[in-house]
Amino acid sequence: MRIAVLGGDGYCGWATALYLSRKGHTVAILDSLIRRHWDNELGVQTLTPLSPLPARLQAWREATGESIEAHVGDACDYEFLAGFVREFSPDAVIHFAEQRSAPYSMIDRRHAVGTQVNNVVGTLNLLFALGEFKKDCHLIKLGTMGEYGTPNIDIEEGYIEIEHNGRKDVLPFPKQPGSFYHLSKVHDSHNIAFCCKVWGLRATDLNQGVVYGTVTDESLLDERLINRFDYDEVFGTVLNRFCVQAAIGHPLTVYGKGGQTRGFLDIRDTVRCVELACLNPAAHGEFRVFNQFTEQFSVLDLALQVQAAAKKLGLKTEIDHLPDPRVEAEAHYYNAKHSKLIDLGLQPHLLSDSLLDSLMNIAIRYKDRVDLAMMMPQVNWRNAVNDRSRTAPLAAVAK
Amino acid sequence: MRIAVLGGDGYCGWATALYLSRKGHTVAILDSLIRRHWDNELGVQTLTPLSPLPARLQAWREATGESIEAHVGDACDYEFLAGFVREFSPDAVIHFAEQRSAPYSMIDRRHAVGTQVNNVVGTLNLLFALGEFKKDCHLIKLGTMGEYGTPNIDIEEGYIEIEHNGRKDVLPFPKQPGSFYHLSKVHDSHNIAFCCKVWGLRATDLNQGVVYGTVTDESLLDERLINRFDYDEVFGTVLNRFCVQAAIGHPLTVYGKGGQTRGFLDIRDTVRCVELACLNPAAHGEFRVFNQFTEQFSVLDLALQVQAAAKKLGLKTEIDHLPDPRVEAEAHYYNAKHSKLIDLGLQPHLLSDSLLDSLMNIAIRYKDRVDLAMMMPQVNWRNAVNDRSRTAPLAAVAK
Repeated sequence: MRIAVLGGDGYCGWATALYLSRKGHTVAILDSLIRRHWDNELGVQTLTPLSPLPARLQAWREATGESIEAHVGDACDYEFLAGFVREFSPDAVIHFAEQRSAPYSMIDRRHAVGTQVNNVVGTLNLLFALGEFKKDCHLIKLGTMGEYGTPNIDIEEGYIEIEHNGRKDVLPFPKQPGSFYHLSKVHDSHNIAFCCKVWGLRATDLNQGVVYGTVTDESLLDERLINRFDYDEVFGTVLNRFCVQAAIGHPLTVYGKGGQTRGFLDIRDTVRCVELACLNPAAHGEFRVFNQFTEQFSVLDLALQVQAAAKKLGLKTEIDHLPDPRVEAEAHYYNAKHSKLIDLGLQPHLLSDSLLDSLMNIAIRYKDRVDLAMMMPQVNWRNAVNDRSRTAPLAAVAK
Repeated sequence: MRIAVLGGDGYCGWATALYLSRKGHTVAILDSLIRRHWDNELGVQTLTPLSPLPARLQAWREATGESIEAHVGDACDYEFLAGFVREFSPDAVIHFAEQRSAPYSMIDRRHAVGTQVNNVVGTLNLLFALGEFKKDCHLIKLGTMGEYGTPNIDIEEGYIEIEHNGRKDVLPFPKQPGSFYHLSKVHDSHNIAFCCKVWGLRATDLNQGVVYGTVTDESLLDERLINRFDYDEVFGTVLNRFCVQAAIGHPLTVYGKGGQTRGFLDIRDTVRCVELACLNPAAHGEFRVFNQFTEQFSVLDLALQVQAAAKKLGLKTEIDHLPDPRVEAEAHYYNAKHSKLIDLGLQPHLLSDSLLDSLMNIAIRYKDRVDLAMMMPQVNWRNAVNDRSRTAPLAAVAK
């Protein structure tokens, strides 16, 4: 298949592009490289040293003989995006090209508006490019489990049958997103569903859980193929951050009681889920939703697992319960369905000690790159303005 | 009360500003006047000749002795909007300042993106201005009944109790909006609900039905106070358009079978509903939703009522069933609740022959201003691109 990966230089996007290329698909990456710039803005760097995109692609050619095209530009630039769609003529477009950090979106108005405009306009542009030039292309959009929030009922995959006053209908599952970022994904979902209805587009919304891990079979082939490993309070996802904290002797930063329960998955399952969606496309006019995660954990569960795994490596780890900077339930019911990708053949990589070992060993290897000042939350959901540039402590590098 | 009316130069906004001023409130209008420009862009004019905003306000002073402040600028300009909020320090902000035409949003990508960015960013800016500078201000936001679509179950006011797999929760009513415009209102609703939760803002979302009528007690005081009367295929709402069509002998343009059923209300009820929301504010942290309409009609019902009322005036009227340019069910279940504003004291102006007479007589008075070329739908929901500038027939003025 001809597969375009929008946001293919990012964390999930890069792993996906390599995986699909190795599986024999013709892959093109479209990316504005803005994610690298956000590191600059925040004064942080990924734990792992990233090669420039051209060097990454050169390494891929050398390691596998396969070429991945790169198109550097912004999905919010319609002429650029539509030109790419016409020229590359993809069978499937995988859309990762969004600002994906909840804390980043909560810094202040500029970041909130920037996140929503970037994500909503990029997705609208993609919908129009497909509507104008490539209606049969299958859109695979990265959503988030965070679109649902934490309702007191089971979470279904996108839709729920509701019986009310003696009548029934199957309706979109109600959304209660918890940040301006998560809201942007809800906006996207509504926009995509509508375009499937009016123009007959075909789309799969992958409501992904929290991703952990960094290594995939492909990224191991050459050091220049190494993937991002974000551990900071803005872009670092919780399990990756805990592993880095354990590796350098920093207390694990649990927000509040830690009863916040979410769906999680290994990045090796992210890439496989996306492939399964490609190989089993939505029908014309269909807006399909898969919940893309493999296991549920509470934040405290994860902290305890990391603490135990660290102990086996001879590391003593404390758990700090910080005041929760987010506005969220710290204890709640959570039961989200996630059978559709399993039905298509997903064989999950469940969380294991060996994965935690691997993450902590990567963190130990690169510990000189860890900035301790980036561990503590600086973005408080309760404030309309978080002046991160002022509140950030001076950078302190781990010894 | 000190009440700010954003979009106060528009159709509902102008009527509301006058009504609240006459009721003794201190009213300020904030408006970019872009709605007047959209008429220019589309090559259309309101049936009724509008005075410039300063002349409107001068007439209001002369007629009543009351002053309404005007602040001309864009809600998408945060410095301007936030400066206004700090300076005027409103007790309530009524937010009409959005692009409100579904067909306009469906013209092409530029209009879709423009509508969503304008509406979403304007509302985000307002939320941040309140979050930063006026947290106790009551936000009254104009939403639309179109946020719900046409589910096969009763439509509740904003929330629905769902029982699922033996558990219960009260969740946001699922949304199935039918245009990029309606989608923008859904995005707004989610954004506002979130800000009420995280910052403790207080908001009322008025999910308004289709408004008809043009005259209010206040606008009658001076001809310079006359309100808009849009009859064109882009901004004209259905009942107003039918009355103009009947008055000039044009067939009533029913889209498809005409079984499309919606909630409707008289503009005199719009202004009263807004006042009731002001006088009975939402609690701090509450995101409250009222369905703001008084009666349900199908499009064909309305056409038949207009035809009958026209006959009494000696006008012979045909009904044309055009292919529906929208993607919507032409026959469907529809039962939307609307008791909350009644409970607060709304006494509806139900649709009557005298109102239809009045609308047709206004149309007859201004028939020289009617452009027949603006009657037929030129924006097809099924097309990603509608080149309105190319497809528009040459303007033909009614004799």
